[in-house]
Amino acid sequence: MDYSQSAMAKLYHVPLSPFCRKVRLVLAEKKIEVELVEEKYWEESPDFLRRNPAAKVPILKFDGKTMAESTPICEYIEEKHPEPALLPRSAEGRYEVRRLVNWFDDKFHNEVTSKLLYERVNKKVMKKGFPDSTNVKAGARAVKYHLDYMAWLLDHRRWLAGDVMTLADFAAAAHLSSLDYISDVDWNRSDTVKDWYAKIKSRPAFRSILADQVPGFPPPAHYADLDF
Amino acid sequence: MDYSQSAMAKLYHVPLSPFCRKVRLVLAEKKIEVELVEEKYWEESPDFLRRNPAAKVPILKFDGKTMAESTPICEYIEEKHPEPALLPRSAEGRYEVRRLVNWFDDKFHNEVTSKLLYERVNKKVMKKGFPDSTNVKAGARAVKYHLDYMAWLLDHRRWLAGDVMTLADFAAAAHLSSLDYISDVDWNRSDTVKDWYAKIKSRPAFRSILADQVPGFPPPAHYADLDF
Repeated sequence: MDYSQSAMAKLYHVPLSPFCRKVRLVLAEKKIEVELVEEKYWEESPDFLRRNPAAKVPILKFDGKTMAESTPICEYIEEKHPEPALLPRSAEGRYEVRRLVNWFDDKFHNEVTSKLLYERVNKKVMKKGFPDSTNVKAGARAVKYHLDYMAWLLDHRRWLAGDVMTLADFAAAAHLSSLDYISDVDWNRSDTVKDWYAKIKSRPAFRSILADQVPGFPPPAHYADLDF
Repeated sequence: MDYSQSAMAKLYHVPLSPFCRKVRLVLAEKKIEVELVEEKYWEESPDFLRRNPAAKVPILKFDGKTMAESTPICEYIEEKHPEPALLPRSAEGRYEVRRLVNWFDDKFHNEVTSKLLYERVNKKVMKKGFPDSTNVKAGARAVKYHLDYMAWLLDHRRWLAGDVMTLADFAAAAHLSSLDYISDVDWNRSDTVKDWYAKIKSRPAFRSILADQVPGFPPPAHYADLDF
């Protein structure tokens, strides 16, 4: 065996990025070993820009390729490592998963994650000033509406996109776990959503995410607690 | 034949939305007949909100389902109607297409489309005030960088994601055609990009897009001209 050609993946990431967390969850669920490299992408180092002209994380080095864009990365991993499956087989089922992944990475991200996490954490870390209270209030209002939408889905299904766990659950859990790190999720709002999060949080794939630490932002005690 | 169960699709759209145009191109390329219904989604009519809680277009009624989110819709159509193929077979090839679709629908959209088309057209149509000249200037700067990136890709490949036309070309052409409607693309910047656009513009699938008319915004003469 030629270890220089090892299949080990390397992920350039930041700990609280929901897009990076989605890729980490997929890799872990598929039992693909990954070396995590923290990347201060906002400093735009020449090395990083060479790896990724879009100047974003995640960047995954895998199979001899350097890949950007979290959802295309997850679809690639799914196609190369189909077990355990994170997309159903039917076109209808796959559509519903992809719709929800987009819902969280687009709508939830714009309305909630960018207004809470980016205001409270990213601005400080990137030295871009103080949280804008209008944004924080809008994010705090919007997260309630999204939790209610999740509760409605989960009243009809065991997991967000159907009766099996899929990439949609990982996309949602990636955003919620990042917000939970800064105590911005009210788990008392819905027992259904809390039960869903408890199930996903207790998976081995979640361990590395629960161990994350961001200097200057210690997580609350309940963050890593499986009995939160 | 039971015509009440006709497979005909119905698309709720706005003419210049690049996300709607991408879906229109895919349907037309696959020769799936579609009825277009213009949807003033910003007026948030109760009927439309019932169809689509995200209050966005496109919404596609197809196969007895009501679908939102343009890329998941395109992936669904591709899975149900695989010919002619708009995604390659290999995981590597599919990754590259999806990466570029994301590039245009995320990065290009944020840096260019939202700063030019939305400032110049959407604000007026939605009665949301006047174009912000800082945004317009930023968009006009950014489009040059994106055209150069496309030229670089097309110097290495016949089409954006490889040697065959894919969904990546439709995503790019959807954005560029909307911007071309308001004369915001400088086709003199790169012969390579202009040749690529001439090829894609002359496809039968493009005809309906070239016939679009937005009241108050007559297209320039070159818009529908295949010899622009």
